[in-house]
Amino acid sequence: MDRRLRLGMVGGGQGAFIGAAHRAAARLDDCYDFVAGALSSDPQRAAESGRMLRLDPARSYADYREMARAEAQRSDGIDAVVVATPNHLHAPVVTAFLEAGIHVICDKPLAMSLEEALQMQALSHATGKLLAVTYTYSGYAMVRHAKEMVAAGELGDIRLVQVEYLQDWLAEPVEQRGNKQAEWRTDPARSGPAGCLGDIGTHAYQLASFVTGMLPSDLCADVVTMVPGRRLDDHVQTMLRYPCGARGTLLASQIATGEGNALRLRVYGTRASISFDQENPDYLGYTPLGGNPVQLKRGRVRSASSEHATRIPVGHPEGYLEAFGQLYRDAALQIEAMLDGRPAPPSSLLLTTVEDGVQGMRFVEAALRSSALAGARVPIG
Amino acid sequence: MDRRLRLGMVGGGQGAFIGAAHRAAARLDDCYDFVAGALSSDPQRAAESGRMLRLDPARSYADYREMARAEAQRSDGIDAVVVATPNHLHAPVVTAFLEAGIHVICDKPLAMSLEEALQMQALSHATGKLLAVTYTYSGYAMVRHAKEMVAAGELGDIRLVQVEYLQDWLAEPVEQRGNKQAEWRTDPARSGPAGCLGDIGTHAYQLASFVTGMLPSDLCADVVTMVPGRRLDDHVQTMLRYPCGARGTLLASQIATGEGNALRLRVYGTRASISFDQENPDYLGYTPLGGNPVQLKRGRVRSASSEHATRIPVGHPEGYLEAFGQLYRDAALQIEAMLDGRPAPPSSLLLTTVEDGVQGMRFVEAALRSSALAGARVPIG
Amino acid sequence: MDRRLRLGMVGGGQGAFIGAAHRAAARLDDCYDFVAGALSSDPQRAAESGRMLRLDPARSYADYREMARAEAQRSDGIDAVVVATPNHLHAPVVTAFLEAGIHVICDKPLAMSLEEALQMQALSHATGKLLAVTYTYSGYAMVRHAKEMVAAGELGDIRLVQVEYLQDWLAEPVEQRGNKQAEWRTDPARSGPAGCLGDIGTHAYQLASFVTGMLPSDLCADVVTMVPGRRLDDHVQTMLRYPCGARGTLLASQIATGEGNALRLRVYGTRASISFDQENPDYLGYTPLGGNPVQLKRGRVRSASSEHATRIPVGHPEGYLEAFGQLYRDAALQIEAMLDGRPAPPSSLLLTTVEDGVQGMRFVEAALRSSALAGARVPIG
Amino acid sequence: MDRRLRLGMVGGGQGAFIGAAHRAAARLDDCYDFVAGALSSDPQRAAESGRMLRLDPARSYADYREMARAEAQRSDGIDAVVVATPNHLHAPVVTAFLEAGIHVICDKPLAMSLEEALQMQALSHATGKLLAVTYTYSGYAMVRHAKEMVAAGELGDIRLVQVEYLQDWLAEPVEQRGNKQAEWRTDPARSGPAGCLGDIGTHAYQLASFVTGMLPSDLCADVVTMVPGRRLDDHVQTMLRYPCGARGTLLASQIATGEGNALRLRVYGTRASISFDQENPDYLGYTPLGGNPVQLKRGRVRSASSEHATRIPVGHPEGYLEAFGQLYRDAALQIEAMLDGRPAPPSSLLLTTVEDGVQGMRFVEAALRSSALAGARVPIG
Repeated sequence: MDRRLRLGMVGGGQGAFIGAAHRAAARLDDCYDFVAGALSSDPQRAAESGRMLRLDPARSYADYREMARAEAQRSDGIDAVVVATPNHLHAPVVTAFLEAGIHVICDKPLAMSLEEALQMQALSHATGKLLAVTYTYSGYAMVRHAKEMVAAGELGDIRLVQVEYLQDWLAEPVEQRGNKQAEWRTDPARSGPAGCLGDIGTHAYQLASFVTGMLPSDLCADVVTMVPGRRLDDHVQTMLRYPCGARGTLLASQIATGEGNALRLRVYGTRASISFDQENPDYLGYTPLGGNPVQLKRGRVRSASSEHATRIPVGHPEGYLEAFGQLYRDAALQIEAMLDGRPAPPSSLLLTTVEDGVQGMRFVEAALRSSALAGARVPIG
Repeated sequence: MDRRLRLGMVGGGQGAFIGAAHRAAARLDDCYDFVAGALSSDPQRAAESGRMLRLDPARSYADYREMARAEAQRSDGIDAVVVATPNHLHAPVVTAFLEAGIHVICDKPLAMSLEEALQMQALSHATGKLLAVTYTYSGYAMVRHAKEMVAAGELGDIRLVQVEYLQDWLAEPVEQRGNKQAEWRTDPARSGPAGCLGDIGTHAYQLASFVTGMLPSDLCADVVTMVPGRRLDDHVQTMLRYPCGARGTLLASQIATGEGNALRLRVYGTRASISFDQENPDYLGYTPLGGNPVQLKRGRVRSASSEHATRIPVGHPEGYLEAFGQLYRDAALQIEAMLDGRPAPPSSLLLTTVEDGVQGMRFVEAALRSSALAGARVPIG
Repeated sequence: MDRRLRLGMVGGGQGAFIGAAHRAAARLDDCYDFVAGALSSDPQRAAESGRMLRLDPARSYADYREMARAEAQRSDGIDAVVVATPNHLHAPVVTAFLEAGIHVICDKPLAMSLEEALQMQALSHATGKLLAVTYTYSGYAMVRHAKEMVAAGELGDIRLVQVEYLQDWLAEPVEQRGNKQAEWRTDPARSGPAGCLGDIGTHAYQLASFVTGMLPSDLCADVVTMVPGRRLDDHVQTMLRYPCGARGTLLASQIATGEGNALRLRVYGTRASISFDQENPDYLGYTPLGGNPVQLKRGRVRSASSEHATRIPVGHPEGYLEAFGQLYRDAALQIEAMLDGRPAPPSSLLLTTVEDGVQGMRFVEAALRSSALAGARVPIG
Repeated sequence: MDRRLRLGMVGGGQGAFIGAAHRAAARLDDCYDFVAGALSSDPQRAAESGRMLRLDPARSYADYREMARAEAQRSDGIDAVVVATPNHLHAPVVTAFLEAGIHVICDKPLAMSLEEALQMQALSHATGKLLAVTYTYSGYAMVRHAKEMVAAGELGDIRLVQVEYLQDWLAEPVEQRGNKQAEWRTDPARSGPAGCLGDIGTHAYQLASFVTGMLPSDLCADVVTMVPGRRLDDHVQTMLRYPCGARGTLLASQIATGEGNALRLRVYGTRASISFDQENPDYLGYTPLGGNPVQLKRGRVRSASSEHATRIPVGHPEGYLEAFGQLYRDAALQIEAMLDGRPAPPSSLLLTTVEDGVQGMRFVEAALRSSALAGARVPIG
């Protein structure tokens, strides 16, 4: 990078875990200056957050529409904006900035419905602006290495895909006990029709698709609310079928007692299998047919995509912020290329975008449909 | 045990892995003398096997019916017989010995169909003879400890049951390349209508039921043949629902490249979760809600059932033969009590029997039915 | 084996863990009939133990000398005897049976002193009888595979040997609280001058020597008693130097809080390293220089020595009794060959014998000598 | 932090891993602006590095003395400098900046000799300026939690300390094949009298001291050069004794084939033991006497010191850069307090400083001394 890009943020003010994570990720590789924000829908909170984050008060906005308008007119206006609001605001905020000609980096799930997602996709295409969607886990070096292994045929033909994303933080009705994160995530008005399914099910779905390069054609789903009184699902189990005949299972649960943030993927091919556990992301399991398990380590494997997504040598662990930062680095590489009117560097093209966001919404809608039909098999998308 | 029981075997002659495993298991705790056999349906092979195993030639039979008849008439006739034949012979052999008044220890799956299993169950009840079914994995000390923890409420109410049994030895069409084990296991005439589903799916189903004390009410299943030309299924995935509202997934695959004998169970309750991996059976994972994972170790936990099922102290690993031997010890305790006309010792009552075998067949039939209906949800049993 | 050998035992009566383990090990592969014993030095206890173990009362002796004499004269006398007494009786018992022309399988450490060990070695050589010493851990399939890998040069030249044996059962003064095992092990009259050093330090030393095929030339040692009031050492740390320039560390501790029976070996060569953990004995770690760790699994590796030392397929775990049983099988193969006047089968030659026992005593004496000299470097042997 | 501190760097230009790591660490928590540097002793390389890092050319110096002088005179001069040069320059650079009244953050090992280290310590005290030494591994949340557990008595009295730091990158003579990192690290003129001992042995020593709060009183050491032709040691093994009677072993090796950056610590007390593995830093093993191992996870444990040293929730892994960043955050908190003339916040006081650096040099000198005396026990310091 020859310069730092100017970055703004909507949402993610004081106390929001994900806002701070976005900013740390953006800072990691020194590709951005954080210069503007509409950090809260509450004007006073927005102003305070701006002060804490050392923003120029003139660029700490109370309203995201105002921010889009003002920044678009400044000669030193932001190059890109981060959208870190609850889900129901993704579509309007993304729309405002894309229409203002500003690149967007949006949290997931992209939208409240497939329809909304498709509109955002169309707008991104129409404006020619980047709409990145932060499927953070695709930023890990070993996830990218896994994708490269599959693509190179090292697993042979894929037969089984097993992915699960297990947490326990919603095992009790914490949304009724003042947990803000839980409140909006279990509120259909702010989260949409899917709870766990949208919040983490889409992550699992995306990770499996990212690594295998395959999308399932149909599924059977059981979308369940385990905790009494909860308004959205907190447990999802599905069986997947792929066009090539492969099978899969996807499990997402926020009531899996004892689990932290257990996103785990296993892919079995005719020649070998691989396994990834997000809580130990510097490793990738690999076992050939009839062979012994190998623990591939970041820094010990050679692949263009893993080397692009790593900073430090073997045995010096990288984590979640580094994966997140990778998305920001890739976005920066793409945006800079667009600003310069040249093609994006190939190394940056694994960045997840609106296309992934749309696929996620297709999955959500199919799972809800199947579950309503007592688990009957339905097509996806 | 005050004496050794006299034991015979049908099947399991030279070269049969499972026959040797049965004998080593029977020997482990010194409860049996192995004295008679009809070790092969081929008379010459039967005789040779008998010689190798140092049987009295007079008690090395060419035919299991002859053996049942002759042993029943000897004053020193066998107390119990082991049935280690391919599946299609389980019913006739078990029937012959039960009718001859001889206790039976039968390999799994119990039968070719639910109907056959129910007949064997009725016969066992009618004759008052033991019909043990060797669900080996229920013999592990830590599996029994897990069962005791669930029963004691240490997990709270069960919400999720995840069980999988993954192998890779049928990932290629080895039944066409001279692998005897694969030949009969993929032959509907000898294995019945279920391949992987019956061979290892029933193990997974039984383990989950054994530990949780719960049977699911209905399921959605996808029973698949992945390897071209194979005549029975080699991959099964199911979603389970329990009467209490709990959910489950059961996965069984013999084409899961890289896996050896990966029977793994996880149970999540409202208070805690546990996890067991058959390849590392001296351990049981335990994590309370919001807490840190504990690796419970055999010999470090205190429970009547785990202490009954262990021989050596912490850090001296026990394995598959010890688990298998446990079933033989429990069977001996029950048979000795029956011979003496007294109740079986409570410690022996976790022995798996025809009741487990019948449940296994209910599961097999339901899974086949659901899969034929494109994964539609069907009741079990 | 064409026949079962006749086996006797001295020591190891009721309540002795190690006696039961010896018998189960001897039974595992069906190579022995257990027919005689002097199971306790207390005649009543000896008789009771004999009854419990279903010995012919005529062959349940109150005195080991009487047993050696009587069994040597019977036409159906024992072929071999197991010595499972406390250490101070090893020498007299072994001597009595060797002199009676009976093969001996003796627990470790072989002797109370190097001098005693050398006398037993001389007697074994003079009588031409087997004197096996049960370094159980050398019976594991993956330990034997490790030895074969080193011998085949797969590790290159050995540079580092790290071995540790950690337990916590003596972390408190349990010998003062009625623990019988602890009583004699901390009593110089029955254990000799070394406590932890002799009890488990010799195991660690033997394992390292067995796998690497190398003996160190000198050492620095710190032999420590941590628990106040204890009469023998309970913690040992040493630094080793090998003639080839390799270095090593050996650590043995019975006060390592939280450890069960943690015998762990790592060997680093110029080309690759390996690691073994006795608590998970079906695995052997292997990492090439600059490469990724491989978890070699029993049943997935190919080597004559591991295949000789295994019974069941990959994923069906073997444990301590199987390793122990391997020594008994190897001893049976050697004894049978001697009875038949033919060379022992090569597969049996990894059996540990008096030669290993003597090396263990050389190590003990050197460690005590160095420690008395404030850790100064001293030669071994 | 109310403001960002102005930061400069000496050394660490293009291609230097550790320079980039320092800068990323400094950026992580947004406490610094990087504004000046003398990034290479080669003026052209220094200028290019400055350009790449977007420094104001006027503040990209060719010489560190010039930089210290110039920055001290600017009203917007740097608040602190990072010293990321090879070891032989630590003392002169640190001296120049401390004398210029600028706070210093220096890489380890602090000095070429104990004498040098003591001079720097005296200068730091005399000037009242911070001299932080980046013992990165003490920045991990779980290392700090471990320290807090020990201090709170959760382990009881410490009996054993085992620490090892194993790498394989110097297993071959790569310094003769163009590896720059290896060249200076194996060159006595630039590294001092200790190779592996100073480079990573001091890390291991510091980690053990940090967690236990104890310094050993004496040691036996074997400081070895394994690779022919190498000019400094590449393997070190030591035995430690503590004033309280505890024992320890410290192992450091750069020829441990297959190891990446394996810094591992185990501490055994009378009540419990803990274990830490730097390659998996979000975890801390904990096992009580006679109990089951617990895997303490960052975010699942509660302690002031671990919460101060963490950014993201359980299951979102943190890594090396986060640990490194923690030192920078703590340094910023201390420097800001000094600039404001108030006491440093207690949370920042675990920052490692010149005191740790001096202890490291005492260890190095004692180890060299003992090794020269054939491993004889010598006092430390």
